[in-house]
Amino acid sequence: MNRPESYLDFFNQTRAATENLCKPLATEDYVVQPIVDVSPPKWHLGHTTWFFEEFLLVPYLPHYERYDERYAYVFNSYYESMGKRVVRTDRGNLSRPSVADVYKYRAHVNEHMQKLLASELATDAIPVIEIGIHHEKQHQELLMTDIKYILGNNPLLPKYGEVDHEVFVENHEQEWIEMPDGIYHIGHDTKEFCYDNELPRHRIFLEPYALSNKLVTNADWMEFMQAGGYTEVLLWHTEGWDWVSKNNIAAPNYWHNDENGEWFNYTLNGYEKINLEAAVTHISYYEAFAFAQWKGLRLPTEFEWEAAQDKLDYGKRWEWTESAYLPYPNYQKPDGALGEYNGKFMVNQKVLRGYSIATPDHHARPTYRNFFHPYLRWQFTGLRLAKSI
Amino acid sequence: MNRPESYLDFFNQTRAATENLCKPLATEDYVVQPIVDVSPPKWHLGHTTWFFEEFLLVPYLPHYERYDERYAYVFNSYYESMGKRVVRTDRGNLSRPSVADVYKYRAHVNEHMQKLLASELATDAIPVIEIGIHHEKQHQELLMTDIKYILGNNPLLPKYGEVDHEVFVENHEQEWIEMPDGIYHIGHDTKEFCYDNELPRHRIFLEPYALSNKLVTNADWMEFMQAGGYTEVLLWHTEGWDWVSKNNIAAPNYWHNDENGEWFNYTLNGYEKINLEAAVTHISYYEAFAFAQWKGLRLPTEFEWEAAQDKLDYGKRWEWTESAYLPYPNYQKPDGALGEYNGKFMVNQKVLRGYSIATPDHHARPTYRNFFHPYLRWQFTGLRLAKSI
Amino acid sequence: MNRPESYLDFFNQTRAATENLCKPLATEDYVVQPIVDVSPPKWHLGHTTWFFEEFLLVPYLPHYERYDERYAYVFNSYYESMGKRVVRTDRGNLSRPSVADVYKYRAHVNEHMQKLLASELATDAIPVIEIGIHHEKQHQELLMTDIKYILGNNPLLPKYGEVDHEVFVENHEQEWIEMPDGIYHIGHDTKEFCYDNELPRHRIFLEPYALSNKLVTNADWMEFMQAGGYTEVLLWHTEGWDWVSKNNIAAPNYWHNDENGEWFNYTLNGYEKINLEAAVTHISYYEAFAFAQWKGLRLPTEFEWEAAQDKLDYGKRWEWTESAYLPYPNYQKPDGALGEYNGKFMVNQKVLRGYSIATPDHHARPTYRNFFHPYLRWQFTGLRLAKSI
Amino acid sequence: MNRPESYLDFFNQTRAATENLCKPLATEDYVVQPIVDVSPPKWHLGHTTWFFEEFLLVPYLPHYERYDERYAYVFNSYYESMGKRVVRTDRGNLSRPSVADVYKYRAHVNEHMQKLLASELATDAIPVIEIGIHHEKQHQELLMTDIKYILGNNPLLPKYGEVDHEVFVENHEQEWIEMPDGIYHIGHDTKEFCYDNELPRHRIFLEPYALSNKLVTNADWMEFMQAGGYTEVLLWHTEGWDWVSKNNIAAPNYWHNDENGEWFNYTLNGYEKINLEAAVTHISYYEAFAFAQWKGLRLPTEFEWEAAQDKLDYGKRWEWTESAYLPYPNYQKPDGALGEYNGKFMVNQKVLRGYSIATPDHHARPTYRNFFHPYLRWQFTGLRLAKSI
Repeated sequence: MNRPESYLDFFNQTRAATENLCKPLATEDYVVQPIVDVSPPKWHLGHTTWFFEEFLLVPYLPHYERYDERYAYVFNSYYESMGKRVVRTDRGNLSRPSVADVYKYRAHVNEHMQKLLASELATDAIPVIEIGIHHEKQHQELLMTDIKYILGNNPLLPKYGEVDHEVFVENHEQEWIEMPDGIYHIGHDTKEFCYDNELPRHRIFLEPYALSNKLVTNADWMEFMQAGGYTEVLLWHTEGWDWVSKNNIAAPNYWHNDENGEWFNYTLNGYEKINLEAAVTHISYYEAFAFAQWKGLRLPTEFEWEAAQDKLDYGKRWEWTESAYLPYPNYQKPDGALGEYNGKFMVNQKVLRGYSIATPDHHARPTYRNFFHPYLRWQFTGLRLAKSI
Repeated sequence: MNRPESYLDFFNQTRAATENLCKPLATEDYVVQPIVDVSPPKWHLGHTTWFFEEFLLVPYLPHYERYDERYAYVFNSYYESMGKRVVRTDRGNLSRPSVADVYKYRAHVNEHMQKLLASELATDAIPVIEIGIHHEKQHQELLMTDIKYILGNNPLLPKYGEVDHEVFVENHEQEWIEMPDGIYHIGHDTKEFCYDNELPRHRIFLEPYALSNKLVTNADWMEFMQAGGYTEVLLWHTEGWDWVSKNNIAAPNYWHNDENGEWFNYTLNGYEKINLEAAVTHISYYEAFAFAQWKGLRLPTEFEWEAAQDKLDYGKRWEWTESAYLPYPNYQKPDGALGEYNGKFMVNQKVLRGYSIATPDHHARPTYRNFFHPYLRWQFTGLRLAKSI
Repeated sequence: MNRPESYLDFFNQTRAATENLCKPLATEDYVVQPIVDVSPPKWHLGHTTWFFEEFLLVPYLPHYERYDERYAYVFNSYYESMGKRVVRTDRGNLSRPSVADVYKYRAHVNEHMQKLLASELATDAIPVIEIGIHHEKQHQELLMTDIKYILGNNPLLPKYGEVDHEVFVENHEQEWIEMPDGIYHIGHDTKEFCYDNELPRHRIFLEPYALSNKLVTNADWMEFMQAGGYTEVLLWHTEGWDWVSKNNIAAPNYWHNDENGEWFNYTLNGYEKINLEAAVTHISYYEAFAFAQWKGLRLPTEFEWEAAQDKLDYGKRWEWTESAYLPYPNYQKPDGALGEYNGKFMVNQKVLRGYSIATPDHHARPTYRNFFHPYLRWQFTGLRLAKSI
Repeated sequence: MNRPESYLDFFNQTRAATENLCKPLATEDYVVQPIVDVSPPKWHLGHTTWFFEEFLLVPYLPHYERYDERYAYVFNSYYESMGKRVVRTDRGNLSRPSVADVYKYRAHVNEHMQKLLASELATDAIPVIEIGIHHEKQHQELLMTDIKYILGNNPLLPKYGEVDHEVFVENHEQEWIEMPDGIYHIGHDTKEFCYDNELPRHRIFLEPYALSNKLVTNADWMEFMQAGGYTEVLLWHTEGWDWVSKNNIAAPNYWHNDENGEWFNYTLNGYEKINLEAAVTHISYYEAFAFAQWKGLRLPTEFEWEAAQDKLDYGKRWEWTESAYLPYPNYQKPDGALGEYNGKFMVNQKVLRGYSIATPDHHARPTYRNFFHPYLRWQFTGLRLAKSI
């Protein structure tokens, strides 16, 4: 285990990166919460700061007093054991603290974190330091996708800026990577940081299968749409069909059919014509599943994905898997509030693998398990097909 | 009928007054919509501007082009006949146009309005000029109460500034003003501006009655609460009781019981101890009715109020009446979009009389009919008791 | 005031009439509650019985014991002061007590009521006897309309039986009955029974007006539909428009457009082609209002209706009025549970006048005030136009 | 593959068994649907009959005409590809067809099924015959649990009759059955009937684990309740906690705390004191999970259960597993409407293993996969603990 000081740069770079993501925003963009799953950027800035204050400065830095006692109430997210929180749907109703005040709060906590990390006071809290930094990185991804949602659902469709691989084209031909049956090892095994849900490393058995070496493209999706994919009930789960019907879903998120019948989509780079070569993105699990049914294929499980990951070129789109988000055999939930981090979400969600362009550097791993409800699609989600052989 | 030019000062003063109300706000305060009935201040600024642009500049000022075609979509409120609008619950999701852009939009429209009003081009549109100015005044009242809601429901409870009569004390003793039976004239009859719903002036008959010369006070209300008023079902309308139960209502809005059992309330001047001498405010019609039942008295009708208004000292609190908001005999709805102003709300609402501290100068009249749903209480509402004699 | 015995026949005839209405029903028809406003016939049979047991037998007949203590819980409706009740939406979930058991309960209570009414024990309770009988008559009307709803929304569309004036044709030409301005007396004034909401008799002033001598017909309504009445937003109240949009309303209740575009409707007599000469029925207040707007006319107030009622031929359809359901000047709510009968509904409802074919004999009066929410249309509602002159 | 005739007895016995279950019911009990998941018994009787008519008589028996064309509309359940159906929440609103008519429909279809099965006409449809019979057996289980819900949520708590093992006591001591790591075969492999979701048989790897030889008892559960299990947020999934909070869950279904604080429960045998020795039942997955967390143990996966099933004594309670309901590797959905049977539910549900007292004879198998949403508890659900070793 390292000494606290060795995390100082990592901490500072991470904190700066978060603020960097917000540079193109107007003050007003920091405030709104258009759907319950999207948090105001201001809230992300405050919440990640509160995490360091509450789990490190308060318990480990002598004489530290909270910057503002009321912020715990405003910026707690879902740590039920840490006291009353602003209910999630209310985040977008809070005009105060102002953006400037939140940045002051960040600066204050950063300053005290320098002291703490330069000392030996938090030596026993290394896992908390690590989780705090990775927690902020996770919020960087949410920040990016929440910003996209906020701007991309505004009638003025304001541009955010140039983001690499917002439109992501794989130039190679589609081929199948075949994998033999056998016992595979799943889960994290290096000395590096990982989340509890990637542990313990364990064995599983896979029947023979093949994975596509390429993500499904917008051209593929257009074909699915033209073939009536969104109106053919037998392709869908019952709950997927209800979701499609109730929400009038007929295309990926951010797609718009203009008055001439041409398809456009909102990207962080602006409002553009659909690039047919690019990987389809902003689809739900329900849509991914229906597409695979239509092709007579299926989604991979997360285990099939992990077993083959060294043969894949990935990292631009989160890939929906067929796997439900469940604990690994002999999974141990950490004690206390940090135990709320992962385990309590292990029902009714699907696993995604492979990172996206919004995932910050040094955050993801081949064993990383992302998870969302099957109807969500504001993340940079995509789809890689699989089949049994 | 006057010439357009004669409205120039009135227009400019009104426009300036709106912006004046927003002076104490942080940028973030302009953006949020904590409940469906409260609009973001930014939206009020834009919407009142859109009204002048759409109903005056576009039809009457030659070669005028809309500042931004998309603003019609963002800032229309409920004029169904004027095209698609941002649905009301979505107003708080819009970070753009920014506050600065909305002020630019205001300046642009103001500038062109100077030209229009200085000309004879809008001579036929005097009623629209008048309604546009009064429309903005109406929004000034909403702006003030919406700001109070936004700040007063924020966990930091920020102060707005000093507002006269936010705490309103009537020093005189309570007495009954008696009124004989007879035919009374109701409705507007001067040459001055009024809304369509105040017309036509007509006759009604009143049985003998008496009105209190004083509003119900916080001390009275405290007594009602201590007597179990909020838990005694027989005092309430069925729908009032459902509202109380579902929303756990046990005190007027903005009241809080601190840890020592003492009652405080949020006012625009800050968070303060309840002043027992002051008139109770921020109560719903349901509460006003239950209180009157408990006293063995009743609310006045709007006709009783208007017939006696010259004997009353009023104007600080909107007074709930027992009257439903209905058309007067032979009421004529104006043609076209302006016909949507009042008539289409004449169901399921109650009339309030008497103005409040948020009502701007030169806006209200003795015949003015305000109206809200019976459960609403974010306006400066109060209660004057009546009885049959 | 009469002696209890003088009510014996009235009581017995009323009780028998209720059961008579149910003769055409299958056991299963007694059980269901397809919408919250429609109660299972079984429940009406039990509830009216519970009323006599609870308000007469228990307090006035010595040694009387409740037939089944648990029935109070099952059959109370909305008398909050009389203990916990089965919430209204749950009535259709109760398979027990069985229909046969409910009839036994009726017989048991009837038998004891004979004793009570033959004695002098309830001499002080004459008003309760009267209200109990009229209460049951009110439920007869609901029973008939609830049965129609249950059968008319069943995919098999079963016929109930021959009911007079289910299709009601007025043969005379439409003419206007003109009424002069002046003071009129409103409210009940004979010695006969009336409800508290018809009192006290009082004076009102009416401006000159005219009422149609004929109800609006299906032919008129068809014209309204063909003119796009259901899609022209400016004809509707905001809340009416929301109701139309949300529920896809495009015709009166029970109307169906068959595959050839011909209009049919379900009646208690069976499924039949629309009779164009007949009075339109099963319309909401919102629809009645929009129709009148489209004609450039209006609905009468309940006072206009009552003042002219001796010149009208009415009694087959409840006629929507423009009046909100409000207390008359100096209205006195009865004490105790019976005070819950009327007063607590005096908000957000509209008054209907004139009875319907489902109103039992000896129940309605010229001063009778029926009331429903503006969106309801399962009653035999219709529309008579008015205008100011 | 057998000949159709060989299914005649199996068909007849199954059909008779369904009707047998309904013998204790009053006509009214057949009609109601107290929650969306519970169907009216009448509907089960009709729906299982419709299945034979639609999938066998119509396609295979020459000149067969549907008993009533409208029944397809009434009794279809969720076969979206077979035409419009009565939406699920409406089933309890249908008083017709009457119970007697439904029994006539059954008799009619049974009679024609005798003809069909005695012939060779349906030789190609053997899989459909089998699935039709097993479909009816599945509905027998639902019928029993729906009846329990209907009676057990009626304020009169009527008894159904004596049902074996409604209170189920295992007399042996609790011990752990240990299982070594290794490859196990999962899924159906005999020639007998099974559902598509039990196929194909395939290999999985299990890390070492142990299963309890005994179900969790009411005494265990009482201890959990007394230790505050229902109020300790850290034991629960987020969605479980929301479910507990929103529905005020504080004990298994059908449990009631009487005025003396003693615990009773409704059983089909009547309302009785809780038997502490008996296996706990009518719990949701969320509760089962929280209980296991509290014990520091966990639920088994469905694979762990199946691998050890020959060492278990089971069959009285469905046992919640930790497994999500997902397709087996290389799962093939049948073509056409029967393909809707299982596959479309494979999201957001949990697997249960082991049968219950409501499962009919010859229906379940060691490889049988039952599945429900995690919040449901009207089935005879229970809990067997597991641990990793």
